Amino acid sequence: MIKHLVVIGPGLIGGSFALALKRQGLVERVTGVGRGRANLEHALKLGIIDAIGESLPAAVKDADLVLAAIPVGAMPALFRELAEALPAGAILTDAGSTKQDVIAAARAALGGKIGQFIPGHPIAGAETNGAGAAHAHLFEGKPVILTPLTENRAEDIDRVESLWVACGARVARMDKSDHDRVFAAVSHLPHLAAFALMEELAARPDANTFFRFAGSGFRDFSRIAGSHPEMWRDIALANREALLGELDTYIDKLESIRCMIEARDGSGLEQLFARARQARNNWIKGKFE
Amino acid sequence: MIKHLVVIGPGLIGGSFALALKRQGLVERVTGVGRGRANLEHALKLGIIDAIGESLPAAVKDADLVLAAIPVGAMPALFRELAEALPAGAILTDAGSTKQDVIAAARAALGGKIGQFIPGHPIAGAETNGAGAAHAHLFEGKPVILTPLTENRAEDIDRVESLWVACGARVARMDKSDHDRVFAAVSHLPHLAAFALMEELAARPDANTFFRFAGSGFRDFSRIAGSHPEMWRDIALANREALLGELDTYIDKLESIRCMIEARDGSGLEQLFARARQARNNWIKGKFE
Repeated sequence: MIKHLVVIGPGLIGGSFALALKRQGLVERVTGVGRGRANLEHALKLGIIDAIGESLPAAVKDADLVLAAIPVGAMPALFRELAEALPAGAILTDAGSTKQDVIAAARAALGGKIGQFIPGHPIAGAETNGAGAAHAHLFEGKPVILTPLTENRAEDIDRVESLWVACGARVARMDKSDHDRVFAAVSHLPHLAAFALMEELAARPDANTFFRFAGSGFRDFSRIAGSHPEMWRDIALANREALLGELDTYIDKLESIRCMIEARDGSGLEQLFARARQARNNWIKGKFE
Repeated sequence: MIKHLVVIGPGLIGGSFALALKRQGLVERVTGVGRGRANLEHALKLGIIDAIGESLPAAVKDADLVLAAIPVGAMPALFRELAEALPAGAILTDAGSTKQDVIAAARAALGGKIGQFIPGHPIAGAETNGAGAAHAHLFEGKPVILTPLTENRAEDIDRVESLWVACGARVARMDKSDHDRVFAAVSHLPHLAAFALMEELAARPDANTFFRFAGSGFRDFSRIAGSHPEMWRDIALANREALLGELDTYIDKLESIRCMIEARDGSGLEQLFARARQARNNWIKGKFE
């Protein structure tokens, strides 16, 4: 049981975590802290949080658990504030989409309190955001990655894990660099690819002619282009090295498809598409059966 | 009322057209013709077609309407067969995803019968295919593009249009080159982009590490990578010129995003993502409200 949960950024992710724990009866009281007053008031009205923290130090002073659910670029400043404010008994965890940079920022700021920080990443993003998008079932069946530090206490890691499990999530533990490498490929790159297509089309003088006839394939492909610009700016910069590598690999693959089309290599194209289709079908079966 | 509809390729598209017309009581009898015996028998069993045509000439000899719903690369050979077999009173239409090449093939083969061919393209693809995927509601609310020829009779175009409208589709008429330009951008390119990502990931020695953590964004982005390899091979080759242009534009955009990440241009990235998000939100609103 958590007596006092502080959610820094009670939006889609932070708000859903609070709601899921409330639903399970695992938290007594939730305080929300954040930059956006309107979102905090909305979260309060929706019963996601029970109080708005007027300052971070005041909010966390008797917290058992602090969840940082803000864009990763905002983490360093938060950790600097928490270096003093975080009470000795509290666990700090996060929902950042990148882990190496968040951990580096925590290490740089938290000093002797670094062991209290259990890095995490729930895989439950959406193109919606804010407290209004939060719901208690968001994490059901979704992966949550923990990338624990050598300084963490085993019982603290287990405690954070058990809370995510209570939210319905499937928790996995990974090395922080494996995490960033994997998510550069399966999440960050696809987001860039969708943003790129949408932005390029929208900039055309006759954009409406294109959008008018875009169908359901386009709709699904581009869904993640509706994601939060600031959050994705931070992710792109935070996971820069891995993402540059993924972009190069992807552009190379597109170039090789371009060459096949130019050379009218129907057989090569068909084989490539067939391998892609097979992989997709295998993945869907493994994923949802 | 269609007395005898012949569907060449009674799969997802051809089969759904037959089912929708049957449901509306607009067709008396449907014959299926195709390369795949198993699919034809499945279509017969499902009541999509009432008979299997043993040969194309025999099947079409008393047809009012012939729908060619096969990969665009298979159209030229079909048109050559139909040049002799198509009866004078019949309308021929198609469901090909590209229009300039299909029309060129029809023109090359059909001679004096070219006026009987009303080129069409229903925008209702899916990653499923075959008669088993067909259903009577597939075209409801979906766009169908007609790219009529100067040789077409106005009443024949209207007749094909009215049948698609009866299927629930929103019919638009376009110039064939506009069609191919628009669909290169909003359909063909996204398919290549999804195939590329999926194939590249699957070829990695540690592919499972990646697929294991891929989430719902990846699922939606990659859905169209489950599309039919032969059909998409044909589209890529048939719409080669427009698609090469779209690939170049897209690769340039990805390169410019790569440069922003390399230069740590957070502001540029955020603005680009925000324009993409705004365009996506506008499109969804215009599309579904």
